[in-house]
This record gives sequence, C-alpha cells and structure tokens, in this order.
Amino acid sequence: MTLAQLQQVIRATYGDKDSRRGVEGTFMWFMEEVGELAAALRGGTPAEQSAEFADVLAWLATLANGVGVDLEAAVRAKYGGGCPGCGEVPCVCDQTEKP
Amino acid sequence: MTLAQLQQVIRATYGDKDSRRGVEGTFMWFMEEVGELAAALRGGTPAEQSAEFADVLAWLATLANGVGVDLEAAVRAKYGGGCPGCGEVPCVCDQTEKP
Repeated sequence: MTLAQLQQVIRATYGDKDSRRGVEGTFMWFMEEVGELAAALRGGTPAEQSAEFADVLAWLATLANGVGVDLEAAVRAKYGGGCPGCGEVPCVCDQTEKP
Repeated sequence: MTLAQLQQVIRATYGDKDSRRGVEGTFMWFMEEVGELAAALRGGTPAEQSAEFADVLAWLATLANGVGVDLEAAVRAKYGGGCPGCGEVPCVCDQTEKP
C-alpha cells in the first residue's frame, strides 16, 4: 500500500465526516490515538501495537487530506535523498545533532 | 512509496542509531515532531506543513521498526475492509460513535 493509497482509503471511508470536523477537531482525535499508541508500546500485545499504529496512520492521513498535503511527495522531498541533516545513508550526523 | 518502503528507507538511514536509542527515547523524538506538526498546521506554509508530516511519518516508522510492526499489514488489517466500526465505505457509523 502506497502512502497515496492510504490517503485515498481514508478519504473514501471518512472524507465527508472529516471535512465537516475540520483540522482542530481532527488533531484532537489524532492525539487520542497517539496516546493509545504510547500505552500499547508500553504494555500492549503485538496485535494491539499493530492496531494502534494503524489508527495513528489513519488520523495522520486524515490531517494530511484536510490541508491538502501529499504524504508521498512530503517523504520523498525530506528523506528521499538520504538524511536531511548530512545527506548520507546511513546517517552520519554527529550524536549531538541526531542521537 | 509503499509503507514498507518508508520503513526500509528509515531503517537504512537511521537503523543503527534507532536501535541504540530504544523505544522510550524514540517516542520523545516522535512527540517533538508531533508538536512541530501542530504548530505548522496552525500557522505554517504548505512547505512547512509538508516537511512536518514527513518528520512525523519518519519517526512513526522508526517506532514501528523498533517494535517489529509492519505498517502496511497493520493498515490493511484495520482499514482494508472498510471502517472498522461499521464495515462500510464510506463510514456510516452514528455521529456519537464516529463524528
């Protein structure tokens, strides 16, 4: 599944509701899922962790849809040419810059 | 770019550093980027918003790599069959369930 497909799946499933809710309300839902991810990372099963990652990704896609950001283009622009700090793969940034 | 490719790009670029940092330290970096995304959503340019989405995705991929979660499988399992609440595309969950 590409990042563009992720955005399309979420748009098809929730686009109408998302457009009515707006970015501020969507951000609160996103944060609720981030909190659930934190809990799953601390003590969840692999299945629970997987489900919470999916929810965070889904709400991140909703936010991106809401402001018209293309996640695939965003990642390619920032990380497609190696580490944005040093330009290398693997990253050779100093530990104080990127621990 | 697929979600699997995103995880691979981040693993190739930062895998060594990420494995030394651990999940707790990585979560704090992730949250720092979530905060920067919030700021960009409030008042950033499209380019700033795009860069912050990329950073949140990158750190989310790092977290998933750290606990061995396959983001593509996670999204397919949770959202590949329609809304997890009602099973429909578009979602027809009641507003009280999924506003």
